[in-house]
Amino acid sequence: MTSDKIQLDHGSGGRASQELIARAFLPYFDNVFLNELNDSAAVIWNGFRLAFTTDSYVVDPIFFPGGDIGRLAICGTVNDLAMRGADPRYLSAGFILEEGFPLSDLERILQSMAAASREAGVQVVTGDTKVVPRGAADKIFINTSGLGQIPPGIDVAGQNAAPGDLILVSGTVGDHGLTILSRREGLSFETPLQSDAAPLNGLVRSMLEACPGLHVLRDPTRGGLATTLNEIANQSQVGLEIWEEALPIRNEVIAAAEILGLDPLYLANEGKLVAFLPAEQAEKVLAAMRDQPYGREAVAIGRVLAENPGRVVLKTAIGGRRLLDLLTGEPLPRIC
Amino acid sequence: MTSDKIQLDHGSGGRASQELIARAFLPYFDNVFLNELNDSAAVIWNGFRLAFTTDSYVVDPIFFPGGDIGRLAICGTVNDLAMRGADPRYLSAGFILEEGFPLSDLERILQSMAAASREAGVQVVTGDTKVVPRGAADKIFINTSGLGQIPPGIDVAGQNAAPGDLILVSGTVGDHGLTILSRREGLSFETPLQSDAAPLNGLVRSMLEACPGLHVLRDPTRGGLATTLNEIANQSQVGLEIWEEALPIRNEVIAAAEILGLDPLYLANEGKLVAFLPAEQAEKVLAAMRDQPYGREAVAIGRVLAENPGRVVLKTAIGGRRLLDLLTGEPLPRIC
Repeated sequence: MTSDKIQLDHGSGGRASQELIARAFLPYFDNVFLNELNDSAAVIWNGFRLAFTTDSYVVDPIFFPGGDIGRLAICGTVNDLAMRGADPRYLSAGFILEEGFPLSDLERILQSMAAASREAGVQVVTGDTKVVPRGAADKIFINTSGLGQIPPGIDVAGQNAAPGDLILVSGTVGDHGLTILSRREGLSFETPLQSDAAPLNGLVRSMLEACPGLHVLRDPTRGGLATTLNEIANQSQVGLEIWEEALPIRNEVIAAAEILGLDPLYLANEGKLVAFLPAEQAEKVLAAMRDQPYGREAVAIGRVLAENPGRVVLKTAIGGRRLLDLLTGEPLPRIC
Repeated sequence: MTSDKIQLDHGSGGRASQELIARAFLPYFDNVFLNELNDSAAVIWNGFRLAFTTDSYVVDPIFFPGGDIGRLAICGTVNDLAMRGADPRYLSAGFILEEGFPLSDLERILQSMAAASREAGVQVVTGDTKVVPRGAADKIFINTSGLGQIPPGIDVAGQNAAPGDLILVSGTVGDHGLTILSRREGLSFETPLQSDAAPLNGLVRSMLEACPGLHVLRDPTRGGLATTLNEIANQSQVGLEIWEEALPIRNEVIAAAEILGLDPLYLANEGKLVAFLPAEQAEKVLAAMRDQPYGREAVAIGRVLAENPGRVVLKTAIGGRRLLDLLTGEPLPRIC
């Protein structure tokens, strides 16, 4: 640890987060489920595989174009389950509220959580509410944990990427991160930015129907696409080649990111996934994705190589190659 | 709602908490599991009954005699599962850390969580860490969610209390609440107070072995014994008669509570349970409890009546009777 105190980048999802997990958490909670470091743990339950996951949401501002902290809390946990190939079913919701928080805001958030739950087809079955004195928390934090069932024959995990795989992304990247940051900085653009917060379990279901042998699914949230790709390259010990020209990024995101000096590849997404699968299955899966509301802009963005295990290389438009590293530093605390 | 803003007593576990849940939460998350308002939801999973629960921990101070926020976070969730008669198995842990929080404190908390997990025989299989800027949260908040399996034939729930039942408590009440408050107020007493934070699943297992038909189990945390008894009286629509002379309360707790003007019956416990069961089973169950480390001081404290459904009456030492109502107001925010 470079410091003896928690720093913002320990929560970035990037390098410092990984170091904190490896050095502080894993030594104490050493077990095969946690050690896999996937979005959900897959545990065996009476002979069935159950996916279990948790996430706390601390996004600021709590309301933003395209969503709010409540929609994020449902979609994020649904997506973590879906990224194990699981069918999400039951969620818990734990609220930490600051004294003085407007009840009307709470109700708006609950309404949004209910709508997102209906859309995803999950139920919030257990909950908890704590209230802390003014100043001890900022407005509202929400934890959601989730349970899903992994169908027989499905084995989707970050360890499974293999040379020859194609890498798909379900749509444009950077939308959520840039929306939050723009709001916070008080920036406005001609074409308004909007968060992509969405439940992806329907999309995943159609992808697994088209290709039950799909290797890896992951949603590039904190740390963005670049960090997610690095995680998978590491877990599977393969090299990744990403084609810059193929990366789907909205023009308004490119423009805003340029103004703010940020790289959209490191900005959080809340309604996108990356998938790794045998190249010969890619056409069929892309077609299935494009039939789904949250997969219309799905494209292939790269491929898996045996060389350079653990490394992600970006092939640039002009034919150059540069290393796409893990996020270091924290451009954007409280992004989700 | 009496106010349009969240107030501290919305998190007390007492009357205002119940109103908030009924008016704000239940309309949006209307489902049979949540509506039962038990410590855990019991859902059917491939023909097996699975208990699922969540709790956030915001206790202040984070270290206190007898425990810390980490021990509390493990024990509290283990206990919520055990109170459904479930065998706790897997936990999640979600951390919200304030920028600048000492890593040594985090490691001390993680070590304590690991020790409590070992004691309870559960595994933390999935986790999440968020860091918020200085001032946006106070030091550390922990959410734990948990999964347990309810064995066949066990039906323990707040709805099941029946006239003729005896009411048992596993030991002294008020210890945790008064320990926290004394620390916060900087009070010290000749005999030091200590939190009772403990995992109760071993105790519950031995109770269910002695009496599989046990009706109700609940841990009297926020709002204390009085609030818990009121919840059960309401859920089961029965009257409760509690014998003041039988209530186990440590002398130092009585003394400290008197100084602070608090009633130990409304103070949180983190390692105690109340049980409702047919009177003829009570001796056997009490014997089983007293064989367990966390049940040595178990006693019967009252009985269930058909009259006065929803009401809890305290029979005082001098032969009087007074209504033991739900907690109103919040004597003690951030108690767990």
